[in-house]
Amino acid sequence: MTEFRNLMETFENEFPERDYEIKIICPEFTSVCPKTGQPDFGVLTFFYTPEKWCVELKSLKMYLQSFRNEGIFYENITNRILDDLVAVLAPRRLKIVADFSPRGGISTVVTVTHEAQA
Amino acid sequence: MTEFRNLMETFENEFPERDYEIKIICPEFTSVCPKTGQPDFGVLTFFYTPEKWCVELKSLKMYLQSFRNEGIFYENITNRILDDLVAVLAPRRLKIVADFSPRGGISTVVTVTHEAQA
Amino acid sequence: MTEFRNLMETFENEFPERDYEIKIICPEFTSVCPKTGQPDFGVLTFFYTPEKWCVELKSLKMYLQSFRNEGIFYENITNRILDDLVAVLAPRRLKIVADFSPRGGISTVVTVTHEAQA
Amino acid sequence: MTEFRNLMETFENEFPERDYEIKIICPEFTSVCPKTGQPDFGVLTFFYTPEKWCVELKSLKMYLQSFRNEGIFYENITNRILDDLVAVLAPRRLKIVADFSPRGGISTVVTVTHEAQA
Amino acid sequence: MTEFRNLMETFENEFPERDYEIKIICPEFTSVCPKTGQPDFGVLTFFYTPEKWCVELKSLKMYLQSFRNEGIFYENITNRILDDLVAVLAPRRLKIVADFSPRGGISTVVTVTHEAQA
Amino acid sequence: MTEFRNLMETFENEFPERDYEIKIICPEFTSVCPKTGQPDFGVLTFFYTPEKWCVELKSLKMYLQSFRNEGIFYENITNRILDDLVAVLAPRRLKIVADFSPRGGISTVVTVTHEAQA
Amino acid sequence: MTEFRNLMETFENEFPERDYEIKIICPEFTSVCPKTGQPDFGVLTFFYTPEKWCVELKSLKMYLQSFRNEGIFYENITNRILDDLVAVLAPRRLKIVADFSPRGGISTVVTVTHEAQA
Amino acid sequence: MTEFRNLMETFENEFPERDYEIKIICPEFTSVCPKTGQPDFGVLTFFYTPEKWCVELKSLKMYLQSFRNEGIFYENITNRILDDLVAVLAPRRLKIVADFSPRGGISTVVTVTHEAQA
Amino acid sequence: MTEFRNLMETFENEFPERDYEIKIICPEFTSVCPKTGQPDFGVLTFFYTPEKWCVELKSLKMYLQSFRNEGIFYENITNRILDDLVAVLAPRRLKIVADFSPRGGISTVVTVTHEAQA
Amino acid sequence: MTEFRNLMETFENEFPERDYEIKIICPEFTSVCPKTGQPDFGVLTFFYTPEKWCVELKSLKMYLQSFRNEGIFYENITNRILDDLVAVLAPRRLKIVADFSPRGGISTVVTVTHEAQA
Repeated sequence: MTEFRNLMETFENEFPERDYEIKIICPEFTSVCPKTGQPDFGVLTFFYTPEKWCVELKSLKMYLQSFRNEGIFYENITNRILDDLVAVLAPRRLKIVADFSPRGGISTVVTVTHEAQA
Repeated sequence: MTEFRNLMETFENEFPERDYEIKIICPEFTSVCPKTGQPDFGVLTFFYTPEKWCVELKSLKMYLQSFRNEGIFYENITNRILDDLVAVLAPRRLKIVADFSPRGGISTVVTVTHEAQA
Repeated sequence: MTEFRNLMETFENEFPERDYEIKIICPEFTSVCPKTGQPDFGVLTFFYTPEKWCVELKSLKMYLQSFRNEGIFYENITNRILDDLVAVLAPRRLKIVADFSPRGGISTVVTVTHEAQA
Repeated sequence: MTEFRNLMETFENEFPERDYEIKIICPEFTSVCPKTGQPDFGVLTFFYTPEKWCVELKSLKMYLQSFRNEGIFYENITNRILDDLVAVLAPRRLKIVADFSPRGGISTVVTVTHEAQA
Repeated sequence: MTEFRNLMETFENEFPERDYEIKIICPEFTSVCPKTGQPDFGVLTFFYTPEKWCVELKSLKMYLQSFRNEGIFYENITNRILDDLVAVLAPRRLKIVADFSPRGGISTVVTVTHEAQA
Repeated sequence: MTEFRNLMETFENEFPERDYEIKIICPEFTSVCPKTGQPDFGVLTFFYTPEKWCVELKSLKMYLQSFRNEGIFYENITNRILDDLVAVLAPRRLKIVADFSPRGGISTVVTVTHEAQA
Repeated sequence: MTEFRNLMETFENEFPERDYEIKIICPEFTSVCPKTGQPDFGVLTFFYTPEKWCVELKSLKMYLQSFRNEGIFYENITNRILDDLVAVLAPRRLKIVADFSPRGGISTVVTVTHEAQA
Repeated sequence: MTEFRNLMETFENEFPERDYEIKIICPEFTSVCPKTGQPDFGVLTFFYTPEKWCVELKSLKMYLQSFRNEGIFYENITNRILDDLVAVLAPRRLKIVADFSPRGGISTVVTVTHEAQA
Repeated sequence: MTEFRNLMETFENEFPERDYEIKIICPEFTSVCPKTGQPDFGVLTFFYTPEKWCVELKSLKMYLQSFRNEGIFYENITNRILDDLVAVLAPRRLKIVADFSPRGGISTVVTVTHEAQA
Repeated sequence: MTEFRNLMETFENEFPERDYEIKIICPEFTSVCPKTGQPDFGVLTFFYTPEKWCVELKSLKMYLQSFRNEGIFYENITNRILDDLVAVLAPRRLKIVADFSPRGGISTVVTVTHEAQA
């Protein structure tokens, strides 16, 4: 988890009796490579089924922007954002697909998933 | 459910003995963000298996247009339209995929599903 | 079923011991809307597994052209063509996907399926 | 010209000695057909070379939203918006391409151009 | 010219002092091949600069539908529709691009142009 | 099966203990329609899991070229090529998707599958 | 020029007073490489402005099929077909774009043009 | 001009007698909106004809990264980068196309050009 | 396995308790055909679920470059790279899709999979 | 010019009286960056109008392969290949567009042109 998770605000899910999916596409994620100091760019896509809380979009954006000048690896970005969202939303299910721009001709996509315990 | 659901007209399904799917794509949905007062735009896609009734297309269009100047959130739009269609059609199955245009660089897609009780 | 089904000719399936699929794409279907009198346009795609008979392509085309000036709704077109093909071919399986051009900004796709009784 | 043109705000062009182009793409234009009362949708693209003034983007958006519930024909929309922008910006050159969604299977694109007198 | 041209209605161009282009895309043209009796399909695109008159879209559609069961060659369709539109609109400039669906693996596109005498 | 199958050469699968797939795309298949004498064109895609033998690519190409001036129907082409490859390779699994170019506006795709007996 | 040009039939251009373009796309051209004996494949596109004669499409197809088993280089195919069409049609202008499928990873496009002497 | 221009390094053009174009596409430009404090994203494309100097790619990247946390408007970004490159390279010709991601549904593309005095 | 596998470096998976996927796309693979001596080109895509180790991207790139002047067949490349990665990473699951550029008009895609024993 | 130019073979242009264009697309060019020692990849496209000689395709391929392990910059590759082709073919006109794969997120396209003296 990261200290940034407090930036996210939630609102109450008005349809908790229904199992439905919210997909959020954020094509403007950027952070910094801890090895080279060079900026990294990626598209983050979230798929979640809310339980009690939904994430407010503008606050999600502010949260993601807090990584702008952080030095952090692809695998860590994706797993920590998953941890933060699970802590804040306690969703039924959450998947994050993080698709990073090519470096040295090589692209990387990290996919992480969380499912609430029954 | 919304008061607008009375705008929808139905016609009888002539093939009730057959389980088949009707998909309807409405790329011109627009409503208003209740927070900013700014218009929102989206593509609504319906997939349903009729039981006794099919929805008449022109009346579906009029129904969707009634949201034009309504202030309503993405999640609510999608869930309430599902409720309205279930009330009017009582379909065997219904899925709605609501794909909203980017705001602040972020796109949202809400997917809701209904299945009739056996 | 429609009177037009007699236009279809068949030839014998030479590989009845094998379960295989024939997909036929007809992008030039046109009929007339019974309500407005305006022409409708659509792409019809057939997927079938033959039992004893295959449909001859040129005769399928003539059969589909017979709807050119008929007033008929989307759901009825698709279901009746399914009935006609089942009557003529008695296939193991048959699916028809009928994708109609937008009217009033709204597109419709009807999908019907038939499976032979074991 | 329309009464809405007062909604547009301008800022000073900092590079008046240079002839350069600003292209602005607005994919979310909507107005109402004066004949049928049905909403129309379109993509408006502006290409202009500023003289003394540039248009502020948020105010351009508010200006375009003022057509949301106006009954107005395609040709008139495009020509009047050109007149409004010429009145407000007095640009060296301005082109508007207005690409409207299909109605009855027919799409329309209106292209208008203004060039300042030497 | 064809007898069908009387089906087209016009409305007055409100901006005759401005040289601007109206592009109209009609993807649902169909006629009949005079040699084989088989239906032909095509996309007709019109580009014109109005002088005194614009063509009303619904009447243009009715005019094009009148070719539905006519036996006529590609080159003749395109040239005669040009003649009809010139007779009805007397435009400053008119171009028609008629893109016909493949027959025997071969596609044909006919492009005709008219420019008013100065 | 066809006499042409002797044109195919094989090489030994070096990884028989592993279940893996080889997909081969041949976009340049051509034969002749036995009814009209006109050439047919298609894209043949093979998916197979080798047991003891892999097909040598250049010899597969020569084998497919041997159909160049043969008069043969779509369904027969696909099924006979399957029979030939099964005879030559004795693969664990084999699927052929044969996608033929449109004739009279109609495209055909034939899919056949073979699975070795356990 | 080739002996095959006699296969082409013409019909009279009914609009000789108008300068217009006919574009014909033939995606199924095939001949044989004279060096390797392997088949070549290409897409031939013709653009011409008729003077007195238009080419009949079915006969053009038969003419192009006569190259099916001929051994001939790309540059020669394109130039000779141009010569044949000029001899048969005497067009005002003719352009042929011949786009051949990759061999050894390399694609070739040959473009030849003819303009009648004034 | 900006203070960042000193970050760019050059190497000598080895072919000064030839007029040729170098196009450089930088899809990962980001700066900050001076009004909202929100990050902006864009694709910058450079087209230039070198005189005596070419720009070294890695140093161009470092130069562009220096805008990462700068508050600056679209029009100013593009014009100032042009000024910097002209100061550093003194090219024969230079064009910059700066394509910024949508904000509030509106995209902006700024195109600036410089030509050396003869 | 190949001698090159020592070029790969690993780093510790910080989230071993979570089952997640890392996809790596390498569009610039090249080796040499052992039969013709001609270079081959391909896109290699890796999908793996790490256990204890992740592969460091730059070292993976160096490892893949070591095949640049090696004479090796498609099936062997793919299976041996799988063996090397399994030896170095001991992943929970690994899939490699190797998509090679067309030779003689024929493309080949080899897909191999490894799953750790429970 | 490079020593490799002797690898190219020519054949006589059979249509020297006609001004026509041959376009050759080579998507599999690779060389080595002289600074980093890393391989570079690019698509080279040639457009030329032959005078007396055409380039034989297989020998052009061998010539381009000779750069495989050469350390050379983008601008130099493109200009030197132009020089080599001019020396070997003495064409009327020649253009080379060299489109190199992204490095550090930045793509480069170099375009060089030669025109024979009248």
